[in-house]
Amino acid sequence: MSNIPVHVAGGKYVVRVEPSLLPKLYRQLRPLGLAKRKLFVVTTPEIWALWHKPFLASFPKGKDAPCILFLPSGERYKRLSALEKLADELVQAQARRDSLLLAFGGGVVGDLAGFLAAIYMRGIPYVQVPTTYLAQIDSSVGGKTGVNLRTGKNLIGSFHHPATVLTDPKLLATLPLRELRSGIMESIKAAVLGDARFFAWLEKNADAMLRGDVDALAYAIRVSVGIKARIVSADEYESGQRMLLNLGHTVGHAIEAATQYRALRHGEAIAWGMIAAVRLAAARAALPANDAARIERLIHHFGPLPRFSATAQRLLDLTSADKKNRSDTRNFVLPVKIGKAIVTSDVTTQELHRAIQSMMQAVRETGA
Amino acid sequence: MSNIPVHVAGGKYVVRVEPSLLPKLYRQLRPLGLAKRKLFVVTTPEIWALWHKPFLASFPKGKDAPCILFLPSGERYKRLSALEKLADELVQAQARRDSLLLAFGGGVVGDLAGFLAAIYMRGIPYVQVPTTYLAQIDSSVGGKTGVNLRTGKNLIGSFHHPATVLTDPKLLATLPLRELRSGIMESIKAAVLGDARFFAWLEKNADAMLRGDVDALAYAIRVSVGIKARIVSADEYESGQRMLLNLGHTVGHAIEAATQYRALRHGEAIAWGMIAAVRLAAARAALPANDAARIERLIHHFGPLPRFSATAQRLLDLTSADKKNRSDTRNFVLPVKIGKAIVTSDVTTQELHRAIQSMMQAVRETGA
Repeated sequence: MSNIPVHVAGGKYVVRVEPSLLPKLYRQLRPLGLAKRKLFVVTTPEIWALWHKPFLASFPKGKDAPCILFLPSGERYKRLSALEKLADELVQAQARRDSLLLAFGGGVVGDLAGFLAAIYMRGIPYVQVPTTYLAQIDSSVGGKTGVNLRTGKNLIGSFHHPATVLTDPKLLATLPLRELRSGIMESIKAAVLGDARFFAWLEKNADAMLRGDVDALAYAIRVSVGIKARIVSADEYESGQRMLLNLGHTVGHAIEAATQYRALRHGEAIAWGMIAAVRLAAARAALPANDAARIERLIHHFGPLPRFSATAQRLLDLTSADKKNRSDTRNFVLPVKIGKAIVTSDVTTQELHRAIQSMMQAVRETGA
Repeated sequence: MSNIPVHVAGGKYVVRVEPSLLPKLYRQLRPLGLAKRKLFVVTTPEIWALWHKPFLASFPKGKDAPCILFLPSGERYKRLSALEKLADELVQAQARRDSLLLAFGGGVVGDLAGFLAAIYMRGIPYVQVPTTYLAQIDSSVGGKTGVNLRTGKNLIGSFHHPATVLTDPKLLATLPLRELRSGIMESIKAAVLGDARFFAWLEKNADAMLRGDVDALAYAIRVSVGIKARIVSADEYESGQRMLLNLGHTVGHAIEAATQYRALRHGEAIAWGMIAAVRLAAARAALPANDAARIERLIHHFGPLPRFSATAQRLLDLTSADKKNRSDTRNFVLPVKIGKAIVTSDVTTQELHRAIQSMMQAVRETGA
């Protein structure tokens, strides 16, 4: 149960979720031929300061020790210029086609280092060791890598799957509580779109998770990864079923853009976006009222969700710029009951406008 | 015969070589669903000034006309910063996942625009319309795309195959003669490693090609592309047979690096590199003396090759930095007769040193 397979065009890889994996990293990496490959680690100074001792504990010292490269913390370094600097450092440290890259950090590190691995010498293998809840359940799985442009987020990138993902829930001990709460919103999303039993589990175990109970976190991570892995395995390049993972993201991305990615964490924006989706679904009676109420209640339980200001019209306008729209018809992910969502293309502008207005009402009433 | 198939993992695509294709471009692109896709063209101001009229002749005018983006001419713009600028322009011009990119230019335009297509929104389709002889026979075929780093050439990139390659030999009418001569060196390489009959044809038709005879050029392009397509189809990701295409490149790359990519055109450096490979092969009696003489004679016929200065030791040192070395054993492509080359890993440093010394002797005696 702690090894979750992801099936992709080139074969399969495994996401391993296990407390205390970090101090045993070297043994986990050995099957990748580490004896013959040089290892390069991309991380942030902050993560490294907190975790370098257990990280290095299992590695050889001296000239066979891994080479550590630093990316400054923060979304503003998720750009081609920072990637180019790391690429030059790889060249100078003599990284080759048979070298192995390891991303040790949150979503920014994983996305950028994964993309670096995708394009360095036209592609070298890499491993993810995610350090935030969001990265552990979401961005480290599925092979999407990339960087931002001045003109938009994640507009440059590749599909490049890691050789393996090694996830240690104990790394969450140093994660700020707001990051944990925000990350769990994507677990709620996974439960809503694909696993009613997990949704009920989350209702019961919310407090254990928020206390940082490692077993509860490990379980939630495994189930969340399993749901995503199942969907990604069925639709590697996001042509169909994978769109389900965008539940809450149409409006969520608009909120992030309207607030310049500053006021809210990603998971918080997605949480508001899910509330909009739930209200849209409930308004057309596609989702039972009781399910809608349970979803909103669970979201708020993992809150508080920050308040923000934006007009409904502005948010509506921003949804059309979302790159996930392939044409002028509006794709939208609709929850139809707890545990099931569908992709529909018949959502009208007026309907979405009303749902956003209703969500903004909730922002004013319940936002913190 | 004018359609050459290239077989790749995702299916196959076709390289079409035909005089006067350019004014009929739109019809060629229609099977790619152009009616529903917006077309974005990446080119240089120089190429566009020379060829925009025939290029646009077959396209609709007005809002369905293609959108033209410019990359300044020159290898120094083959960098991530220039790519990022084009990516921002694509976003502003509303290029989407279902848009089509077209690279209209030489190797730099093709490599950079192909890479842009590979990573824009994690990959959009693209078409090559190569305008130099070298791009027509070499860089437009095989799916290698990428940019340079400060620390080395082509160190960042992707394998991303074009949807199709549309090659019009008449575009060579405005190509400087030195570019034509230099490009033909890669045709000689293709003949040496894979087609004795084509080698004999080149011996007979050299003057027609240098005169710019369109039928002769079209024939040479088709055969050269065919040889490369056969090899790429057998080994898409350069794990084995594709290394044959590096004939002359081990020493050629070292010459380019030693002369800061300034004194020689790429094909000229490869030509000297082939002379080194021929002399190495002849010295170990792997290549008949008569074949060696014919190869050197044909190279010089398409010369003159520029002189340059570098010590043999310096060139030898630079061969080890070549990214094509996967380990400490020295891979080397050895011509064994006209029409056949092999990849060997037993070339000693001393042997290579002697071959480079012998080549430098030729540089002093016959270089222009």
